[in-house]
Amino acid sequence: MAVYTDVAFEDLEILLADYDIGEPRSFKGIAEGVENSNFLLQTDRAGFILTLYEKRVSAGDLPFFLGLMDHLASRGVACPLPVRSRSGAQWTILNGRPAAILTYLNGLSLRRPEPHHCASAGAALAGLHEAGKGFALVRENSLSVAGWRTLADTTLSGADEIQRDLAELISTTLQSLESAWPRNLPSGVVHADLFPDNVLFMNDKVSGLIDFYFACNDAYAYDLAVMLNAWCFEVDGAYNITKGKSLISAYRQKRPLSAEECASLPLLAQGAALRFLLTRLADWQNRDPNALVRPKDPRDFVKRLRFHLQTKNAAEYGA
Amino acid sequence: MAVYTDVAFEDLEILLADYDIGEPRSFKGIAEGVENSNFLLQTDRAGFILTLYEKRVSAGDLPFFLGLMDHLASRGVACPLPVRSRSGAQWTILNGRPAAILTYLNGLSLRRPEPHHCASAGAALAGLHEAGKGFALVRENSLSVAGWRTLADTTLSGADEIQRDLAELISTTLQSLESAWPRNLPSGVVHADLFPDNVLFMNDKVSGLIDFYFACNDAYAYDLAVMLNAWCFEVDGAYNITKGKSLISAYRQKRPLSAEECASLPLLAQGAALRFLLTRLADWQNRDPNALVRPKDPRDFVKRLRFHLQTKNAAEYGA
Repeated sequence: MAVYTDVAFEDLEILLADYDIGEPRSFKGIAEGVENSNFLLQTDRAGFILTLYEKRVSAGDLPFFLGLMDHLASRGVACPLPVRSRSGAQWTILNGRPAAILTYLNGLSLRRPEPHHCASAGAALAGLHEAGKGFALVRENSLSVAGWRTLADTTLSGADEIQRDLAELISTTLQSLESAWPRNLPSGVVHADLFPDNVLFMNDKVSGLIDFYFACNDAYAYDLAVMLNAWCFEVDGAYNITKGKSLISAYRQKRPLSAEECASLPLLAQGAALRFLLTRLADWQNRDPNALVRPKDPRDFVKRLRFHLQTKNAAEYGA
Repeated sequence: MAVYTDVAFEDLEILLADYDIGEPRSFKGIAEGVENSNFLLQTDRAGFILTLYEKRVSAGDLPFFLGLMDHLASRGVACPLPVRSRSGAQWTILNGRPAAILTYLNGLSLRRPEPHHCASAGAALAGLHEAGKGFALVRENSLSVAGWRTLADTTLSGADEIQRDLAELISTTLQSLESAWPRNLPSGVVHADLFPDNVLFMNDKVSGLIDFYFACNDAYAYDLAVMLNAWCFEVDGAYNITKGKSLISAYRQKRPLSAEECASLPLLAQGAALRFLLTRLADWQNRDPNALVRPKDPRDFVKRLRFHLQTKNAAEYGA
């Protein structure tokens, strides 16, 4: 939640000469997104977000991310639309960083979503999955099983400093997921990070989905498992099956789940919990004393993972 | 430039029930202000800033700061206007912090102001000084000579780590200012921190003055000396007399400077440079590895101070 790369008004003026989006009226760095530097730009015509992509987002992935938002928006998904420059480019270079201007979406993200919000968000996920069909580019999920192994290799030795027996928990879970991970589920474009801060609401309905910078091709049901982890646990770590039921049932109304997808939910949920546990653990261990972001506590996902390790079927999630 | 205290949408909803400012449409933490946590709130009626006051701003000073903005706005100064709650309160408590909602001003702050911007800003300072007359509350400048001594006591021992002979420079300057500081200049409400980031421009004219959280009662000409330090030096540390002339002459057109004020300018400029040198030095020495703000380089003001120590009269500033 910070601005890493500074953009002076004078830099902005030069940039805007290449775009047909009006005259700037207000320009502020916003505390949003762990990955990038974001600025809210208000012109006399509309609001926009200027994003400068920092080290975690590679320029090589921008055609996928920006093209996907373009594809989804044209199919009715409420997501930011990359604004093309006068020459038709979707992104440019600003202050040494790849940078893009996107349309601004109204709406507010919730900290404590209620079951009806989970339903609205679950339906939005299914809508995203359906709308993503036909998108031409492909991006492998670098944070799936192989990626977890890479993260585990670098984080395991210090894991027990966070919590007793954590290294053992990660190690055995990862081993079992490596052999049992479902590989033939219906797949396509997934968001892969649809936490409540990436869903905007207005009048209790989803008004927008944002932050597509982990989007990739993977099993649709894995995306649902990410959401179960992100939306359906209480602060004390307990699974709220009412929220789970709302989320899954609303999803299914827009995109039915196959028997294989349902049967895989406990494993997928384990994988999703492990993914966030491992990246948070790595961020925690590598936290830079000069960084502008406080790392999130990995232990939230230890609790979730332990829950998933003892579930036996999708019914326990409310499916 | 950060958000220190988090505000969830759910907290915001409870807060807004006490205000008659419309329904929230968008709410984002903004990377602005070293001192406080700031959020940009867009309702269906207008834009607002929600500020949570962190440790550097004491609740006891809020009646002065907020009352001053109210006073100035009612006299035509383009500054944020504190919005009163339904019960008439100018501030409240949110998430354990004093908090206020202020109107949002359009405009953009400049990184590299040109001479005509300096003129517009100088005129705005004089307008602020004139409009501040009649404001009933008084706040001593805690960052004047006595405050510098306090800061010097805690920072001097480590000063030479920043630059050779810096402790000696600070020490002799402070001693000379303690005996020579002008005490009988025309005084009143001053902004005391009118750097370019606190002045908004639209179409090359000042559209707003912001961040009144160092405002206090002091000599008007000291405020001008702060601006000479903040607006009229180039990146290499050279004084730009064209900018100085523009700023001072535009100021004088709205509020004439007395002969005593002019004669005091070199001393006041030394004091202003020492003030920012000392606070930056303290911030540098006390920087918290977990802080969300990178401290600014104190050496910028060493260069300015050395310049002021060799000026002999106001003409060298362009007066």
